[in-house]
Amino acid sequence: MQWLDVRSDTVTQPTPAMREAMFAAVVGDDVYGDDPTVAELEALGARMLGKEAALFVPTGNFGNQLALLTHCRRGDEVILGDDCHIVWHETGGAAVIAGVQLRTIESELGVLDPRAIEARIRVGEDIHFPRTGLICLENAHSNGRVIPLDVMAETRRVADRHSVPVHLDGARVFNAATHLGCDVREITQYADSVMCCLSKGLAAPVGSLLAGSRDFIARARRGRKLMGGGMRQAGVIAAPGIVALRQMSGRLAEDHANARALAARLAALPGVWLDEASVQINMVWFRLADSVDVTALMDALADAGVKANPPEDGWMRVVTHWQVSAADVERLADVFEAALTDRA
Amino acid sequence: MQWLDVRSDTVTQPTPAMREAMFAAVVGDDVYGDDPTVAELEALGARMLGKEAALFVPTGNFGNQLALLTHCRRGDEVILGDDCHIVWHETGGAAVIAGVQLRTIESELGVLDPRAIEARIRVGEDIHFPRTGLICLENAHSNGRVIPLDVMAETRRVADRHSVPVHLDGARVFNAATHLGCDVREITQYADSVMCCLSKGLAAPVGSLLAGSRDFIARARRGRKLMGGGMRQAGVIAAPGIVALRQMSGRLAEDHANARALAARLAALPGVWLDEASVQINMVWFRLADSVDVTALMDALADAGVKANPPEDGWMRVVTHWQVSAADVERLADVFEAALTDRA
Amino acid sequence: MQWLDVRSDTVTQPTPAMREAMFAAVVGDDVYGDDPTVAELEALGARMLGKEAALFVPTGNFGNQLALLTHCRRGDEVILGDDCHIVWHETGGAAVIAGVQLRTIESELGVLDPRAIEARIRVGEDIHFPRTGLICLENAHSNGRVIPLDVMAETRRVADRHSVPVHLDGARVFNAATHLGCDVREITQYADSVMCCLSKGLAAPVGSLLAGSRDFIARARRGRKLMGGGMRQAGVIAAPGIVALRQMSGRLAEDHANARALAARLAALPGVWLDEASVQINMVWFRLADSVDVTALMDALADAGVKANPPEDGWMRVVTHWQVSAADVERLADVFEAALTDRA
Amino acid sequence: MQWLDVRSDTVTQPTPAMREAMFAAVVGDDVYGDDPTVAELEALGARMLGKEAALFVPTGNFGNQLALLTHCRRGDEVILGDDCHIVWHETGGAAVIAGVQLRTIESELGVLDPRAIEARIRVGEDIHFPRTGLICLENAHSNGRVIPLDVMAETRRVADRHSVPVHLDGARVFNAATHLGCDVREITQYADSVMCCLSKGLAAPVGSLLAGSRDFIARARRGRKLMGGGMRQAGVIAAPGIVALRQMSGRLAEDHANARALAARLAALPGVWLDEASVQINMVWFRLADSVDVTALMDALADAGVKANPPEDGWMRVVTHWQVSAADVERLADVFEAALTDRA
Repeated sequence: MQWLDVRSDTVTQPTPAMREAMFAAVVGDDVYGDDPTVAELEALGARMLGKEAALFVPTGNFGNQLALLTHCRRGDEVILGDDCHIVWHETGGAAVIAGVQLRTIESELGVLDPRAIEARIRVGEDIHFPRTGLICLENAHSNGRVIPLDVMAETRRVADRHSVPVHLDGARVFNAATHLGCDVREITQYADSVMCCLSKGLAAPVGSLLAGSRDFIARARRGRKLMGGGMRQAGVIAAPGIVALRQMSGRLAEDHANARALAARLAALPGVWLDEASVQINMVWFRLADSVDVTALMDALADAGVKANPPEDGWMRVVTHWQVSAADVERLADVFEAALTDRA
Repeated sequence: MQWLDVRSDTVTQPTPAMREAMFAAVVGDDVYGDDPTVAELEALGARMLGKEAALFVPTGNFGNQLALLTHCRRGDEVILGDDCHIVWHETGGAAVIAGVQLRTIESELGVLDPRAIEARIRVGEDIHFPRTGLICLENAHSNGRVIPLDVMAETRRVADRHSVPVHLDGARVFNAATHLGCDVREITQYADSVMCCLSKGLAAPVGSLLAGSRDFIARARRGRKLMGGGMRQAGVIAAPGIVALRQMSGRLAEDHANARALAARLAALPGVWLDEASVQINMVWFRLADSVDVTALMDALADAGVKANPPEDGWMRVVTHWQVSAADVERLADVFEAALTDRA
Repeated sequence: MQWLDVRSDTVTQPTPAMREAMFAAVVGDDVYGDDPTVAELEALGARMLGKEAALFVPTGNFGNQLALLTHCRRGDEVILGDDCHIVWHETGGAAVIAGVQLRTIESELGVLDPRAIEARIRVGEDIHFPRTGLICLENAHSNGRVIPLDVMAETRRVADRHSVPVHLDGARVFNAATHLGCDVREITQYADSVMCCLSKGLAAPVGSLLAGSRDFIARARRGRKLMGGGMRQAGVIAAPGIVALRQMSGRLAEDHANARALAARLAALPGVWLDEASVQINMVWFRLADSVDVTALMDALADAGVKANPPEDGWMRVVTHWQVSAADVERLADVFEAALTDRA
Repeated sequence: MQWLDVRSDTVTQPTPAMREAMFAAVVGDDVYGDDPTVAELEALGARMLGKEAALFVPTGNFGNQLALLTHCRRGDEVILGDDCHIVWHETGGAAVIAGVQLRTIESELGVLDPRAIEARIRVGEDIHFPRTGLICLENAHSNGRVIPLDVMAETRRVADRHSVPVHLDGARVFNAATHLGCDVREITQYADSVMCCLSKGLAAPVGSLLAGSRDFIARARRGRKLMGGGMRQAGVIAAPGIVALRQMSGRLAEDHANARALAARLAALPGVWLDEASVQINMVWFRLADSVDVTALMDALADAGVKANPPEDGWMRVVTHWQVSAADVERLADVFEAALTDRA
């Protein structure tokens, strides 16, 4: 049986084109600057993300931590949302590697009030204060919400008023652009640096890009070495990354449509509370009523060959990606319908 | 002219008894463990704070950072209020020295909802998560509010349920105990470690104590050396610290009464918005109406020999201490009355 | 023209079998523990290195830094040779990530006197002293020398006497075993943890292994996430790593023989000073007389399609690997002979 | 009985003048910049040390660590002697607080070969290399040796050639100047920053100075706050520091003469190996023959009211200071003579 895996878009398998690309990749020692495939990926990524330069890194987490290390001095303060990935899911690395203090503000799935950001920027030279070294945004948020362009723009204005740089955790920035119906550069223009994952919805097996100014990337290249991310014949994973950017970034609308289709079916089911307007990218979040027999539901999904994460605190998440077709969505909805209708 | 300095209780001068104590102090090399006066202060402090052992440190800031370093491993997460001193006023040191991630939650002048604390504790062994290494409370808060004993107790229960230690930033813990009408140990019993300032309201010129279990203090002693706090003939400043604990901790009620008396007079003035119930310790906070001519007010205060901090964002703070008598309070209130009545 | 690249063994291209393995790799999300190919590589690596468990990491530098982070507490001291890779070539990472103090002792290409190590171990509980947290060895050294087994054994005894763990930077540990004519486990038995590169002489495109006890690796897994090394479908690079261990680790004797053959020919040339006994693995070091026209020599090499690093301070290094055949070695020696005979 | 304490000069008691100065000190809140006595000490210290500005810090260890933090970026490399205080006796703090990599070179009691320093400076932009951020010297060395002025000068030239700053651990820089018969500024001119202890031979109870350019000290002031060294009414300990600089720095020749006199007597004793030329400051080092009954010797010293550290690895150290008179030296020599003559 071929599993239908809707736990996350991190589970995406490389496409056949990616496997071909790995097989055929022309590679060299990238620490010597000799790998043409890495060079091509970095140039392509920089262009698509609207930055002067880009750097290939092993993971998105690595790219975010490297951005903190490169932008900030030890002891600087970083303003970011209290529900963002750097705060929640990066094992406390910011205090260990970059040595920066995270200053969180209330966030609605990644959307921060620019006035709240401004209120947290340290003004003046009081030696009791750390310096505000960076503002971090996450678009799309890892829980699926997209920051509107005008909020990005207003945050940029706040940052400029205080000469504080902005880093964008754009692990799913192509999903954000797809939702907004714009080129990804319309989002990234508001950030000094962007981290973008080639895995997740873009399906490359390994790797992310950190993009920014030429000077920033030169300094990040040194930081990448310090953090142990200077890989050798990295062209073998850069090659599928090129496929990810060229072939996969344009097809995310399909995943979003599938997510909306699934949401529409689930919203109609008894025991499900789902706000269809919340489905902006490839993630469907919904609440299950207390009356739902969760064990039975999870069993039904497993029996139908579906890998799904069980609800946490009543909330369940289903994620679509290139290996989830429109037909899969209907099949998945059928399983939910059967399980919930029997028992609601 | 003798200034009346109401900017803070950090401005307190050593008392005559403290100067005598410094002059006469029997001292030795404390790094060799040879200073009997330091030993006496540490023993006295431990006893009064209800802990097995205590350590003399140069400042409150040093004591807090040392507590983080001693309790936590690099990369641990520390839960604390978003308006606390460690977050606001310690120059980002937590990420530099202890290498810990600060995880702030909403705070009302230091009072945190224990349920909000519990919701932030990391449960399970997910490698994306930093470990929750510590909960920090601040009582009294540096803005003058006291945490009720039942909130302390409930926080302790939360901490115990998850085996997370609690550190108390008790820079003004004797003020808190005075307000609560209890022995300071009724507060400190809920914390594994306490930092308590001998300066501020207790008026010693230099130094703070960090108290905790014998093992904790043994480890903190090593951390104090690492941080450069192993002073030699420290008995000369420990001696006034002993005076601070013995003679000054019992007289704080006087400062609190003076603060309330001042508050009562100010609250009656035009252009002043003041909540008398908010005056819990030696700090009086009030808002000035936009119509108040702040420059004229500050000039009037200076002319009367009063050092006061100007309002920030409309809020003004006046602090009482052993060098502010009941008569001084009346004189100060007269100056305000004259300035505000003329112009309101 | 196909270049003959003798700059380093880091330039090795993946073998055809490795490309096949990447193409066909069964992969999953390794952060979920779902990648069977990574699991297979880690199990194989652990077995071959004689440890309970192993962890796949992006680079050798990453593996070394992760070992420091996992073995040591912040502020510990690490004893290691003054010419080792961690000191020279890891961008100062040890002080940034693990926060440890490097304590170097004199080293002859990686061979440390165990008595000198013992003399540097901190004994007792003096709070002026950092704790000795780790001893690091490098075998084979990145300049080509192998540590004899009895020196390894004696270092282990020193470490045991003081309960200090030993980490082995075994980037080229299979070369060391090949030179010693022993199983790699006869070397790694003397270390608590080993980092071993799958790239370099073993020719995998990307990745290294960190091996140790089950508990050590569990903690390292968390540290790997913190450092940003938790890759997703890492099976695509683990697959060639398996080929590296299975097919390439046994053929290093060929590279060593080629290095010795080259050394024999070069040693006979005018203007070359070469100690044939120093050629222990796949590296040939030699001095060129001042009379040698280095520019002409480098031009001759380039004209012959050879990529070589120019001499530094009079010393030149040539490295053999699977893409350098016995015939290539003769051709290379011919180029040197022509260049040096003409001009000596 | 009044003990004669020759364990170290760190055991020095404050002089009567210092106690008077503490008693009478005019103080204020130094974090507000309000303490005139601290300001006076800092101005005096800057002038005497030949620098634009100085900062009062709690300990010498604190001053050294603050210098590392202020000069260096995280991950920089610091070149210093392998027997210096920062390496040996500061609990590994350099890697924790400043996050710098210590790169030690062979040292003969603090005297480093400037060519060896130059050989360790990292040249070029290779991303494998940390940047050389600082050179540290220690003069006089904590084991009593003074660096000659021409070695200081040559080190400065090396540093300038590579634009690397120099920090001087001058815990006993006044002893060094006394030995060299020069003004202390003839030594400090070769360093960008100097740490100088007011305790030790100068006998102040607590505190050290860090001196440097105005800009350096402004940045160090922020770092001092971060490290928890911003004391309040620090004038009470600055006041004896002023006495230390004014009255005590000029009398060190007496301690040195006493040390030489003691050395002359001890050198003549059986079972003592002592190089009189090695006695440059206030420290007398000598070896005891194996035949010496150390326990009996230590008992004899204790019986005579002498506190001395027992020999370590056969070496014994005796230190003179203002509480050791010429008569005390004779008495001490008598005790040694009796103990060693009886038993040799």
